[in-house]
Amino acid sequence: MTRATAHPDHRLISGEDVHGTDVYGAGEEAIGEIDHLLIEKVSGRVSYAVMSFGGSLGLAHSHYPIPWSALKYDTALGGYRTGITEQQLRDAPDFSDDSWEDRDWESRTHQHYGTPPYWGGSREAA
Amino acid sequence: MTRATAHPDHRLISGEDVHGTDVYGAGEEAIGEIDHLLIEKVSGRVSYAVMSFGGSLGLAHSHYPIPWSALKYDTALGGYRTGITEQQLRDAPDFSDDSWEDRDWESRTHQHYGTPPYWGGSREAA
Repeated sequence: MTRATAHPDHRLISGEDVHGTDVYGAGEEAIGEIDHLLIEKVSGRVSYAVMSFGGSLGLAHSHYPIPWSALKYDTALGGYRTGITEQQLRDAPDFSDDSWEDRDWESRTHQHYGTPPYWGGSREAA
Repeated sequence: MTRATAHPDHRLISGEDVHGTDVYGAGEEAIGEIDHLLIEKVSGRVSYAVMSFGGSLGLAHSHYPIPWSALKYDTALGGYRTGITEQQLRDAPDFSDDSWEDRDWESRTHQHYGTPPYWGGSREAA
């Protein structure tokens, strides 16, 4: 249990404590956990959660960047829910360490997961 | 030099790498650095940067939570600029480890630093 899940009712979390926060699919069992967050330096918005899935799924990578908007915090669970499926992870646009600096990769990734891009004007007025 | 400042032109930063990013006042010399970020679990917005100022200023605390909106990323510097002054730090509303869960403290702190609250509807449409 991390400090994150020890205080599931707290609104704020340290960027360091987010490491290890559980992520749930449709069921009651965690499918993985958050390894770290990727944050836009200028806006201070979290853009991706880099998730680890352990070895059980037999995926190509041990860590996957997931659009932040694909995760919803659930105070009852003390973790995040996602609708992302194992098949979506397998079919995700290939990536390397610098992919998140590549807007083309970002666009394909958000399209793949069916999430709105965090950039552009669709989600914020400013 | 942290990984953060090693890639000052990257748009995104890992929540873990933000540790040690320099913060500048009006001048060319860093006045402190970011220790960690406080992030809203639900929205994924950074609300505060907890800054450390070393010992040179002789402040009451070694770390201060600063509203995120008081920091502006400067790609040329590879760090953040702030208009917050030493006197403002000295006069800041007193805080403890859980103050950022206290909306009253949050309101007084944002008012003190002259920053708009990150909650409420003034900065986002949604």
